[in-house]
Amino acid sequence: MSSKRVGQSTIMFQNPPAIIGYSSVVGKKEGEGPLSDTFDYINTDTTFGESSWEKAESRMQKDALTIAAQKAGIPISSLEYLFAGDLINQCTSSSFGLREFGVPLVGIFGACSTMAEGLGLAAVMIDGSFSSLCAAITSSHFCSAERQFRTPLEYGSQRTPTTQWTVTGSGAAILSNTGVGPFITHYTVGKIVDLGVKDQNNMGAAMAPAAHSTLSAFFEDTKTSPSDYDLIVTGDLGKYGHELVTDLLRTDGIRFTGNFNDCGLMVFDLEKQDVHGGGSGCGCSAVTLCGKILNSMKSGLLNKVIFAGTGALLSPMTTMQGESVPGICHLVCISTSKEG
Amino acid sequence: MSSKRVGQSTIMFQNPPAIIGYSSVVGKKEGEGPLSDTFDYINTDTTFGESSWEKAESRMQKDALTIAAQKAGIPISSLEYLFAGDLINQCTSSSFGLREFGVPLVGIFGACSTMAEGLGLAAVMIDGSFSSLCAAITSSHFCSAERQFRTPLEYGSQRTPTTQWTVTGSGAAILSNTGVGPFITHYTVGKIVDLGVKDQNNMGAAMAPAAHSTLSAFFEDTKTSPSDYDLIVTGDLGKYGHELVTDLLRTDGIRFTGNFNDCGLMVFDLEKQDVHGGGSGCGCSAVTLCGKILNSMKSGLLNKVIFAGTGALLSPMTTMQGESVPGICHLVCISTSKEG
Repeated sequence: MSSKRVGQSTIMFQNPPAIIGYSSVVGKKEGEGPLSDTFDYINTDTTFGESSWEKAESRMQKDALTIAAQKAGIPISSLEYLFAGDLINQCTSSSFGLREFGVPLVGIFGACSTMAEGLGLAAVMIDGSFSSLCAAITSSHFCSAERQFRTPLEYGSQRTPTTQWTVTGSGAAILSNTGVGPFITHYTVGKIVDLGVKDQNNMGAAMAPAAHSTLSAFFEDTKTSPSDYDLIVTGDLGKYGHELVTDLLRTDGIRFTGNFNDCGLMVFDLEKQDVHGGGSGCGCSAVTLCGKILNSMKSGLLNKVIFAGTGALLSPMTTMQGESVPGICHLVCISTSKEG
Repeated sequence: MSSKRVGQSTIMFQNPPAIIGYSSVVGKKEGEGPLSDTFDYINTDTTFGESSWEKAESRMQKDALTIAAQKAGIPISSLEYLFAGDLINQCTSSSFGLREFGVPLVGIFGACSTMAEGLGLAAVMIDGSFSSLCAAITSSHFCSAERQFRTPLEYGSQRTPTTQWTVTGSGAAILSNTGVGPFITHYTVGKIVDLGVKDQNNMGAAMAPAAHSTLSAFFEDTKTSPSDYDLIVTGDLGKYGHELVTDLLRTDGIRFTGNFNDCGLMVFDLEKQDVHGGGSGCGCSAVTLCGKILNSMKSGLLNKVIFAGTGALLSPMTTMQGESVPGICHLVCISTSKEG
């Protein structure tokens, strides 16, 4: 059996799976942001017509997968596996949002890196000839996240300047063993990196070392540099985390030429939308990818993109117990060409 | 590329990965049960020397992986991917337990079916030629689970007769593309099944329909019947769930000949240990597999085993919001022969 690994930790797909459909479903604030015209569905009701914010988050996943399947021109019942997860306790946004479809479900957990992890695993399933049609889905909701991780919204707690704003949104992408692309060409599975950051209001700083680790590994494994890509985008490091990882990579001699960005900086207008450090949450990178980025690849504006989802692996309990915040970064490389 | 699927939803591995090492780490009560002499490490201190039950659970994962690697005769640093998850919020038992190893981590969520899901995905990674050496790990802890899902232990709440007792334990298994076996020959990814059970104190009943769904799918896909296996074991349905799934399968014409059991019934002595419905938790099926069952396969007492992990996809929040309890069942078939 030939190996499909390059370097220490990167998978290079032999027959890169194609993204044949994708969609993004978001809330009001995201719909007022700079990516407004790239979303498939904007609902200005924070509950999406449901009786709780948690049910609203499940509803977004259901809607995102439904629209992605429509855009791909396939029935959901033809999907062989779903890869889904989220940050609500016990991943219930995914389980309840997707339960009615009757498609085998691989539950995953990567905190805010979930979209990249799901795409990577779905690509493994397809390139390994275990499946011909899979989907990756995730979500987050500002109100369900605040209630669970911080304080109930009704308290009106003040936010620190480094705080990020959880994106209300869900992204879904459908992968196939045939199609015209874009294609998933590589997957670098992240390692847990923990440099001891304990400020749960500065997730960007906690996740930046993980992004540094995975991006460094990817460039080394593939013997490429930032100039080989049209866009290198991290998940949701926000303003402060993005500055940090840029500095960390610069010390390794890795420099960017205006092609390094972060979904947390793209999804909101930081000046006008009062989101402090930028966007965050599983939905942040998911809706930015399944809207702006993939649209730009379909239209030929971007050809090679590194999508590096970033996740903070904490819980309110671990913070209360005095723990630091471990980070992880899962990376997929997406190209309009099968040759990468 | 040839398909590696049989029937509607079962993966049949072409070069079945070998389990080259495994271990089980448990607490005092498990160490007093019928499987006592099959565990690698029994610690009678519920905190495992740590400062909280949550940290104890992380510690068990760390110890289980360390011992499994020792038994396999490999350094942990040679592992290419870890597949791990648990039921503590945001899967922190896994993230904190495994963070020091520096091995790329695929976070998964399957509730109490996590061990089967992890084994299935690790086998996909290896059989697909993406890796030659992976591990699957999970855990649960009675005290951390009670605190999170039910009431703090200090309240001394009374338990209903259908309640199950969360196993304090962690299991780890190491999979390789070479070795003498046992081998993972098949993986059936579970679908979410929700028949509307709302009693969070009767998880076995909630999960039984999912076990029915996956076991039926597996027998149909592989054109086999229970008599083709030495042991068919579900994860943690306990006494009531086991009776239910036996009935459900009987209505389909699927009958057992004394070879159908449940890890929740094997791990404790239900008469003597006051565990009501039996054992439960991610650790329940993990320590039963990574002790009694794999020992029996190594010694030739069992040759073909169906290991069907069962998970209840609820959270305290979904129960408070009036939701029912969706279930899922991930199944792997394990054989002492590569030919299945």
